[in-house]
Amino acid sequence: MSSVRKPAVVLLSGGLDSATALACAVRDGFAPHCLSFSYGQRHSVELEAAKRVAQAGGAVKHQIAHIDLAAFGGSSLVGDGEVPKHRDEAEMGHDIPSTYVPARNTIFLSFALGWAETLKASDIYLGVNAVDYSGYPDCRPEFLEAFRKLADLATREGVEGRQKLSIHAPLLDLSKADIIRLGLSLGVDYGLTHSCYDPAPDGRPCLACDSCQIRQAGFAAVGVKDPQLARFSA
Amino acid sequence: MSSVRKPAVVLLSGGLDSATALACAVRDGFAPHCLSFSYGQRHSVELEAAKRVAQAGGAVKHQIAHIDLAAFGGSSLVGDGEVPKHRDEAEMGHDIPSTYVPARNTIFLSFALGWAETLKASDIYLGVNAVDYSGYPDCRPEFLEAFRKLADLATREGVEGRQKLSIHAPLLDLSKADIIRLGLSLGVDYGLTHSCYDPAPDGRPCLACDSCQIRQAGFAAVGVKDPQLARFSA
Repeated sequence: MSSVRKPAVVLLSGGLDSATALACAVRDGFAPHCLSFSYGQRHSVELEAAKRVAQAGGAVKHQIAHIDLAAFGGSSLVGDGEVPKHRDEAEMGHDIPSTYVPARNTIFLSFALGWAETLKASDIYLGVNAVDYSGYPDCRPEFLEAFRKLADLATREGVEGRQKLSIHAPLLDLSKADIIRLGLSLGVDYGLTHSCYDPAPDGRPCLACDSCQIRQAGFAAVGVKDPQLARFSA
Repeated sequence: MSSVRKPAVVLLSGGLDSATALACAVRDGFAPHCLSFSYGQRHSVELEAAKRVAQAGGAVKHQIAHIDLAAFGGSSLVGDGEVPKHRDEAEMGHDIPSTYVPARNTIFLSFALGWAETLKASDIYLGVNAVDYSGYPDCRPEFLEAFRKLADLATREGVEGRQKLSIHAPLLDLSKADIIRLGLSLGVDYGLTHSCYDPAPDGRPCLACDSCQIRQAGFAAVGVKDPQLARFSA
């Protein structure tokens, strides 16, 4: 009972959320074409995670686009200043943290749009989340809707009135615990993923940055041990 | 009578239009921060032109961002297929040509947005044009307006309700002849610019691609000799 699956571009960071978004694309019947970025991030071990996740998740193709965001500075994720640690929930929810990379999701979605147009794909998946979004402006639903409108005007399809782009953000309204439950139900191996903004050279998570804290709280809420930690328990 | 000029990001290809847009940014009192892209284009001699134009045009800073659009294919400008030659006006006006690079202006504007945010600049200049736009979907006024709306949602400024982004497209409604007249009135040296999609190795324009044809017709309409050609008349 084989059928030709339509291509979808999946933005894949190698983290927990995008691994779950990839599983959703497969669940929805798409042939996933995964796109990751090497952008001068501190935590480039996440690209190794992206490769593991893409392979395990059934990616038809995985591209890593090299782009130079560090040239613009402005974020602790690309080397400006310190990654904040041990912040409480109120701080995470209200500030835009220094780990915010200017226009990052706009840039990532723009590349996804370019690849989608070349593939004649009309679907993009990404793992953004409005609940645990940690204050990033470009993780909000109204941002995604604005990008979709832009995309309809930006491409040949938009001009020629053919099929328009759908941006799938299946995790948008889920808590981290719900994301983990969804991913586990779809067979995601979270042991392959990487979330930490400030890992040790061997990839071991710091367990103190916003991303680590949100992840730990999510697994605790589900009542499951985070399999990521097993890789470093030797 | 010195005053502190506000920064503006200027997208600078090295072509005639963006050189004029840079002159408009200077005219409008901004400190121009020029941004060019090395994206696998055939006509990388335009980056040399961008350097000349930035220096002559008074750029405070000029960055060349290296990005890999060629990985996605889909355009004759990055090596897929032949650059079309000797097309007539009707063909240029109605088709989307093979020189269209998927999502190029979306990607370029996204980078400009990131740099603008880092610089705390709220102005971006670009030389797009809706008259001689040669069928590219992402050169239309409604595309720019959609990007502006996106930008307001994508950045810290948008979230925090501070000053919003202005996208300046001063050439949008001008014919090529009017652009050349404007640039000459602002002192642009068009001898420094490069327009050809398919130049010889020494940078000599082919004079047959859409871009060359539109440029030649523009200078002819103004009644001025294109100074670009003087560099190759030896």
